[in-house]
Amino acid sequence: MHEMLEKYFDKLWPICRSITGDGLRESLKIISEIVPLELTEVPSGKEVFDWTVPNEWNIRDAFIVTPAGDKIACFKNNNLHVVNYSIPVNKEVAYDELMQHLHSVPEMPDAIPYITSYYKENWGFCLDHHTILSLPKEGNYHVFIDSDLKPGSLTYGQFYLPGKSEKEILFSTYCCHPSMANNELSGPLVTAFLAAEIAKKKDRHYSYRFLFAPETIGVIAFLDEWGETMKKNLVAGYVVTCVGDDGKYHYKKSRKDNALCDRVAEHVLTFSDMPFRIEPFSVGGSDERQYCSPGFNLPVGSLMRTPYQRYPAYHTSLDNKQYVSFKAMEETIATYSEICQLLELNHVYTSTISGCEPQLGKRGLYPSSVDPLFDRNDIHRFLHFLAFSDGGYDIIQIAEKRGESALRFKSIIEKCIQAELVKLKS
Amino acid sequence: MHEMLEKYFDKLWPICRSITGDGLRESLKIISEIVPLELTEVPSGKEVFDWTVPNEWNIRDAFIVTPAGDKIACFKNNNLHVVNYSIPVNKEVAYDELMQHLHSVPEMPDAIPYITSYYKENWGFCLDHHTILSLPKEGNYHVFIDSDLKPGSLTYGQFYLPGKSEKEILFSTYCCHPSMANNELSGPLVTAFLAAEIAKKKDRHYSYRFLFAPETIGVIAFLDEWGETMKKNLVAGYVVTCVGDDGKYHYKKSRKDNALCDRVAEHVLTFSDMPFRIEPFSVGGSDERQYCSPGFNLPVGSLMRTPYQRYPAYHTSLDNKQYVSFKAMEETIATYSEICQLLELNHVYTSTISGCEPQLGKRGLYPSSVDPLFDRNDIHRFLHFLAFSDGGYDIIQIAEKRGESALRFKSIIEKCIQAELVKLKS
Amino acid sequence: MHEMLEKYFDKLWPICRSITGDGLRESLKIISEIVPLELTEVPSGKEVFDWTVPNEWNIRDAFIVTPAGDKIACFKNNNLHVVNYSIPVNKEVAYDELMQHLHSVPEMPDAIPYITSYYKENWGFCLDHHTILSLPKEGNYHVFIDSDLKPGSLTYGQFYLPGKSEKEILFSTYCCHPSMANNELSGPLVTAFLAAEIAKKKDRHYSYRFLFAPETIGVIAFLDEWGETMKKNLVAGYVVTCVGDDGKYHYKKSRKDNALCDRVAEHVLTFSDMPFRIEPFSVGGSDERQYCSPGFNLPVGSLMRTPYQRYPAYHTSLDNKQYVSFKAMEETIATYSEICQLLELNHVYTSTISGCEPQLGKRGLYPSSVDPLFDRNDIHRFLHFLAFSDGGYDIIQIAEKRGESALRFKSIIEKCIQAELVKLKS
Repeated sequence: MHEMLEKYFDKLWPICRSITGDGLRESLKIISEIVPLELTEVPSGKEVFDWTVPNEWNIRDAFIVTPAGDKIACFKNNNLHVVNYSIPVNKEVAYDELMQHLHSVPEMPDAIPYITSYYKENWGFCLDHHTILSLPKEGNYHVFIDSDLKPGSLTYGQFYLPGKSEKEILFSTYCCHPSMANNELSGPLVTAFLAAEIAKKKDRHYSYRFLFAPETIGVIAFLDEWGETMKKNLVAGYVVTCVGDDGKYHYKKSRKDNALCDRVAEHVLTFSDMPFRIEPFSVGGSDERQYCSPGFNLPVGSLMRTPYQRYPAYHTSLDNKQYVSFKAMEETIATYSEICQLLELNHVYTSTISGCEPQLGKRGLYPSSVDPLFDRNDIHRFLHFLAFSDGGYDIIQIAEKRGESALRFKSIIEKCIQAELVKLKS
Repeated sequence: MHEMLEKYFDKLWPICRSITGDGLRESLKIISEIVPLELTEVPSGKEVFDWTVPNEWNIRDAFIVTPAGDKIACFKNNNLHVVNYSIPVNKEVAYDELMQHLHSVPEMPDAIPYITSYYKENWGFCLDHHTILSLPKEGNYHVFIDSDLKPGSLTYGQFYLPGKSEKEILFSTYCCHPSMANNELSGPLVTAFLAAEIAKKKDRHYSYRFLFAPETIGVIAFLDEWGETMKKNLVAGYVVTCVGDDGKYHYKKSRKDNALCDRVAEHVLTFSDMPFRIEPFSVGGSDERQYCSPGFNLPVGSLMRTPYQRYPAYHTSLDNKQYVSFKAMEETIATYSEICQLLELNHVYTSTISGCEPQLGKRGLYPSSVDPLFDRNDIHRFLHFLAFSDGGYDIIQIAEKRGESALRFKSIIEKCIQAELVKLKS
Repeated sequence: MHEMLEKYFDKLWPICRSITGDGLRESLKIISEIVPLELTEVPSGKEVFDWTVPNEWNIRDAFIVTPAGDKIACFKNNNLHVVNYSIPVNKEVAYDELMQHLHSVPEMPDAIPYITSYYKENWGFCLDHHTILSLPKEGNYHVFIDSDLKPGSLTYGQFYLPGKSEKEILFSTYCCHPSMANNELSGPLVTAFLAAEIAKKKDRHYSYRFLFAPETIGVIAFLDEWGETMKKNLVAGYVVTCVGDDGKYHYKKSRKDNALCDRVAEHVLTFSDMPFRIEPFSVGGSDERQYCSPGFNLPVGSLMRTPYQRYPAYHTSLDNKQYVSFKAMEETIATYSEICQLLELNHVYTSTISGCEPQLGKRGLYPSSVDPLFDRNDIHRFLHFLAFSDGGYDIIQIAEKRGESALRFKSIIEKCIQAELVKLKS
């Protein structure tokens, strides 16, 4: 799978995405080659909760010409060079004025930072700090940004997989950052290939929704349309971001702190061999801020590798293909996939036996006691599951009482259902 | 008391017990000399929950004659030599066929194992491993089991002590193992002598029931008849097994995990000088599996010394008189007796004073402050009990707030009731 | 402030206080110079809950004349010399009879102990142990106590500060001990100067009540009159005692264990630089015993420095001006004042935004992301407060989720109220 991840990474990389515009649309179209997305266009000016969908931004070119006639900060070389959402500009400016529109990271002089100005009209350029230091103070600079900011629409895409139940699992990722790798291309890539995996599974109990939207405003626009559906049907959700490197797993809990999404993610990580860290909900984050806002309080967490702001390359040109690992993305897809397996498995059962233990022997389920050869763990797991299937515990709780992965109970649960020893709690 | 324990141990030891049959009946008759048991006979073929009462098994003799004419595995020497519930057999068999019916413990070559085959018709012999290794492969063996397996009944016995309240305390033990000491003769012995102790007490608040039944099927048959009474009246119960050695106490909690039986046992152990270990409910166990099954979920735990499967002699001929200690059994009876005292003590009281502390002085309950001599602990215990008697805490909770044994509050509670400072919460 | 504390300490020190009488009245009159007290007189013989207000005690003089004609144990030298509430006596007694009325502390031979006999008529003298040892066994002693014990009244004083809400905060201290410094003069002094501080604050949400009453019977008489008001209006209360030395803080929790008074005191101590210790409610204490009695169960704790019985000088003549520190009292006032600030701050808010986060930018509350200069902590605190303002958490809980002092959220809460982003939960 990692070759496919790399192939799509290379396709998506050069595109200049933003929270609206053709770069975003093109990216969603490429992702549709992996799983077909249904696109929604939300018109500029539409009020979505406390927010307003902004004008659509498109950009064709941008650069600065120095007094010496050198062309620098060329958008076509690196789309990070222009402040995202910059208004058009085409004029001569003196050094002092220019400096008010330039951004760099002095402590990382080789990096071009990623800067945006979505809701305050402005223009600007981002450069490595060496270049900024080398600019002469005399003479005029020509600044040129060929962009436009006008009524249009904001685009988001969904892939919805119906299951037996209307109750659904959500994976939400964002597609609004220009050329950066861990944050954010890893998010849409992992989400799309996870979706393709889940689509292959048969007998899904839950429905699955995969959302590809611009961060913040895109999810707010999505919730404006789909919020009531989410309130009614969402069982567990995850914001998929920063899943591109091979750092240890970081699971950020939902604001509910102990929702199903949290319990499942913690259980899977606990019984994996991977190092991990569980963190409480906090407001320094991504779209879980919208899902978990007081008006929604949805069960949405976020399983990441090295999170935003915890690696120096974050939000700079150094967050590039060298920083990420397609093997690690594949691993992360496997972990998310295990989360889905556990969500599918984790129900509450009740015993069909009115009192005492069932007699397993007469059902051919208990090895005769004169036969010294049987797997004690499996038979104990069997009895343990039956003993706690009183309608009060789910599979995670039952497994954790034995200090074991819930996934180890899968075949036993199936056997018990088949033998009509238990039934799903209605 | 330990001489009496030993006397009855010696009487019960040689009998070949099983889950039905005359050995079981004879054992219950001997126990009736200590406390009178009311016996119940449950006919073979009766459906009890998911189970069916099996045919009755009786055995008179069993042995093997080797090709050399030696008689080995004589039932009359040790009743463990025959697989419990073996069907009758009387024939010549070759070495290979014989071997399919022999059992030993290679890693404990001196021990005869204890094997049963209740629900699958079969026959077999158990021997020490040395003997098995010495058997010649040539020639025929004569195998002889003079048993029968035919419709009859399963027997259990109860001793019921009525108290002021119908609410009851249950002690449940089993009597279906042949000649073994810790598991199981210690169980019926400790239970019977504990019953005799409790019977001597006056003013019992609770009623007490002592059950002597074959393991699993016996308790299932008991619950078939008495289950609704248990659901209505049972306040706390204990399965009494593996109480014969001087190992540390092991308390296995009920499936409810924090039921009254659990809180009382933990409290008594905590404030005893004995080493102990508390364990959660698990399905590797004894009759608590039936009491705590989803259909019942009764408050039944089990206070043991060294539990089943945790000592090498378990379920072999080495679990014999040498392994157990009658002094230790006496101690265990004292601990169970203390549990009963605490159950009797542990009520919830409410203050009769409408506000503020009562004035103890005018009731002659507070030492004058000019008298420098009084037991500060007792007076503090007094005030502490009154301060927390608001109908919200039981005596265990009140005592644990002071980090003390609840039994230390006995005389103080009596004084407060007498002075009409508190009344039982209705 | 500490000079004023010392000035009033010196004024109050020489007065012989008791649970009734003119010494108590005079002390309340002096405290009224700091904050005006409204006095209540409760007549002797009045039934207050389980208690009866005793006769009023007044004393003018007391001493012993030895056989050699020496005057010892002079009340006018130290009012601890006479057992508090001693009945009048004026007679010759032999050594043996005298000894039954003398009190000392053999293990602290320099100290005069503090002894009372409120509810059992008696007389007695307290001396240092050296003096007692030196008394000759021959000859007669003249004992003289010029006191009277007759119908009168018990006095308590209150200072009540109305706030916007009828809901109130109580500070309760006692004024019934003769010349001792930590227990008790520190209590009334800290309470009175704290009251003067709180009186200066504007816009108090809560009303404040400061009670100066004799210990136990005084508070019982207060509750007899004001108990229903307390049940209806009391939000948090503190018994102020043993607040005079520079020992570490001791907070004794209310019997409720996790009431608002407890949470606020623990939060303030946790985020202070002072060493402290939290203790559960216990009956060895002061007036919290009445407030927290089963009939009331009010949210009243006690923030102390070195508590009663934990310092050798306790209840002796060694608990004097040298033992206490006016600087430490000033500190304690500041800590209690911080507790009041937090009580005023600690409300529950709900977001006014129906879904998702508010857009801060359009309200001028979010620094533009092109401006690299802003206090990340403050902006995170801002978002954090908004994220948890769903009507389910109070400010202490919200702050503790960030591991910060709730008082740091003050300006942020005000900004959010002003911007109508949140409203008080009704």
